Amino acid sequence: MSLIVTKFGGTSLCDLERVQAAAQKVVACRQEGHEVIVVVSAMAGETDKLEDLGYSISTRPDPREMDVLLASGEQVSVALIAMAIQDLGVPAMSYLGNQVPVYTNECHQRARITEVGREELRHSIDQGAIPVVAGFQGVAPTGEITTIGRGGSDTTAVAIAVAMDALECRIYTDVDGVYTADPRIVEQARRMDRVTFEEMLELAALGAKVLHLKSVEYARRYSIPLKVFSSFIDGPGTLIVEEGESMEQPEVSAITFDKNEAKVTVTNVPDIPGIAYQLLGPVGDANISVDMIVQNVSRDERTDLTFTVPRNDFEQSLEILRDQVIRLRREAENPTRYEMEVIGDDAIAKVTAVGLGMRSHAGIATKMFETLAQYGINIQMISTSEIKISVVIHEDFCELAVRMLHSAFDLGTD
Amino acid sequence: MSLIVTKFGGTSLCDLERVQAAAQKVVACRQEGHEVIVVVSAMAGETDKLEDLGYSISTRPDPREMDVLLASGEQVSVALIAMAIQDLGVPAMSYLGNQVPVYTNECHQRARITEVGREELRHSIDQGAIPVVAGFQGVAPTGEITTIGRGGSDTTAVAIAVAMDALECRIYTDVDGVYTADPRIVEQARRMDRVTFEEMLELAALGAKVLHLKSVEYARRYSIPLKVFSSFIDGPGTLIVEEGESMEQPEVSAITFDKNEAKVTVTNVPDIPGIAYQLLGPVGDANISVDMIVQNVSRDERTDLTFTVPRNDFEQSLEILRDQVIRLRREAENPTRYEMEVIGDDAIAKVTAVGLGMRSHAGIATKMFETLAQYGINIQMISTSEIKISVVIHEDFCELAVRMLHSAFDLGTD
Repeated sequence: MSLIVTKFGGTSLCDLERVQAAAQKVVACRQEGHEVIVVVSAMAGETDKLEDLGYSISTRPDPREMDVLLASGEQVSVALIAMAIQDLGVPAMSYLGNQVPVYTNECHQRARITEVGREELRHSIDQGAIPVVAGFQGVAPTGEITTIGRGGSDTTAVAIAVAMDALECRIYTDVDGVYTADPRIVEQARRMDRVTFEEMLELAALGAKVLHLKSVEYARRYSIPLKVFSSFIDGPGTLIVEEGESMEQPEVSAITFDKNEAKVTVTNVPDIPGIAYQLLGPVGDANISVDMIVQNVSRDERTDLTFTVPRNDFEQSLEILRDQVIRLRREAENPTRYEMEVIGDDAIAKVTAVGLGMRSHAGIATKMFETLAQYGINIQMISTSEIKISVVIHEDFCELAVRMLHSAFDLGTD
Repeated sequence: MSLIVTKFGGTSLCDLERVQAAAQKVVACRQEGHEVIVVVSAMAGETDKLEDLGYSISTRPDPREMDVLLASGEQVSVALIAMAIQDLGVPAMSYLGNQVPVYTNECHQRARITEVGREELRHSIDQGAIPVVAGFQGVAPTGEITTIGRGGSDTTAVAIAVAMDALECRIYTDVDGVYTADPRIVEQARRMDRVTFEEMLELAALGAKVLHLKSVEYARRYSIPLKVFSSFIDGPGTLIVEEGESMEQPEVSAITFDKNEAKVTVTNVPDIPGIAYQLLGPVGDANISVDMIVQNVSRDERTDLTFTVPRNDFEQSLEILRDQVIRLRREAENPTRYEMEVIGDDAIAKVTAVGLGMRSHAGIATKMFETLAQYGINIQMISTSEIKISVVIHEDFCELAVRMLHSAFDLGTD
């Protein structure tokens, strides 16, 4: 019999009616003749509430204890979903991370899943029950509770699908699929029937909050078909598949944006080996994740180094870099070579075109720049990968840029 | 070094200030030179909230899943208390039932603790940390989460004190000790410095909600001194000790009452062997706990059987008994012998005088009856044990009776 892993996110469990609706979907899936495993997140808002509680007790809460605290959210939802399934006359059993077990490394708050036990879940299914597994949480070799990072329940679902040789992994969320652009901004945005893992990886990384990045990577590595459905309205959803399976290969599949970044520039950087590391090292040491990094060719042995950081880390990044610039000058044999300046701007937006077809089509970048120029939108930074082009622009133009690009690449509904 | 187990109830953890205050008490205890283990309940109201959630999903929620659901309450509070202790500069580590482990049998919702692991807690203390243990929850041999019944955290604390050879077990609660009567009813009620386990067992069983009955039994069996303190105001508390240690042995130590019972009477019961079992058996089978049972000598081979049940179970008890009376008559060879009638009254109160000194002093009962008669209070039932006398009266006279008895036995402050 084919096994299907179904995952319900927090918004799909925002109240008791939603919990019951989720249970009905699970039971329907089983009545179609599938074996089913359910993976659930905490009820909507619960993880935030628990996190706030932790931070209200301690400004730097112990990661080990934060994991204990946060894991309680999924514990509540597995019990409720299991009860709701039982109430429909189908046996169900909840499993916490340590009961499956979902083994992880010991890195609290952002642990990595290392192995998923099959036996307990298999036994449960063979007994005729539907196992309901707590997402987001695992157990370290020490027996301690770990969590795998916010949004991690998607990854738990895929990891379980992999371990149990599932036919597919269904993610129920608050949108009915993956769109060509955010429908709140682009009226003509269209739900895609299919999207490749590669494209989805870029979309997830760029902040299209449908699926968690790690879960897409994981599903791609082990070739587990992922399906995204709405838990509110029935529909065909979006299937995330291997490249070969996707028939259409448009140049551009989707336009996304990210307004949660800020831009930091170090000007007048001496063009000597190791300088980028000397500047960016301390930023990384402070656990600030640097995204786009742009450095142009130097003139007069001088260049500018620009990068983006999460907007929350903007002030700290400026501070770290200014300290580092002072330190480098003080320690330099020739201080005049180190007259750098650190400037920043947090009123930016990153707009990105993603498309597998980009690889074989020239002129996508040109068309993108042309479109932006047409509306007088200045491009501050450019960064490209094989299947995406990102530009940084002033945040005021973000929505306009997304709409115009969506239209220029003809992504909308007819 | 001497080890002290300190337990904080839900009202001692009603908000973040209380959590921090509890952490301060723990750290102070350690600074006095003790090794400390903390046991905590869920924050005030949380267990009720979780229980309501469960019952809102399912009218008969699965006991296994209810345990998973309810155990999440203590999971939140151990993490918060551990963080709060850490914030005071002292290492702390939370432990869930399965991490200690607190082993129990498999009886969900009212499991019995069978063994407490020492190693993890010892290791944690030897590392300089304060272990913070989730009360109320345990783990069955199957690895499933169990809970040991509402109010069970006291028992967890005592079980851990026993396993770890603790010097004493301190229970922090919302009252500053055990009183000679409920201070809300008797203005002159006096906090007792000491009370014996035997007396405390009667007081706990009678609904003086300071300590959970099981925890007192457990502490007595293993001779662990129990101390009750208020977590709101500093004070000497009440020490619960072995009989020998108590210097004063007043005839009566305390007057308690219970308004949560109802009275059921079967009249005209034929005086034949086994009839009490035939009548009360089905009540017990329905998991209704029968408290006082009174049957007087028979007249004309007829007697009346009266007993009390929790007021919540009153209607069901009447129903069960009426069915049973009909069944007995139908099945009887001589039906006329089985013309019984079932009547009930739920407007009753049980008032009890407890005192170790009762054993060696005659006349306590007489004084009690005399006092009640003096105020025209009719006694409906009487039941005695070695160290207590309970009477059932109309509930309207409950407070008056408690006050008058408290005064008659001279229990008040001078």
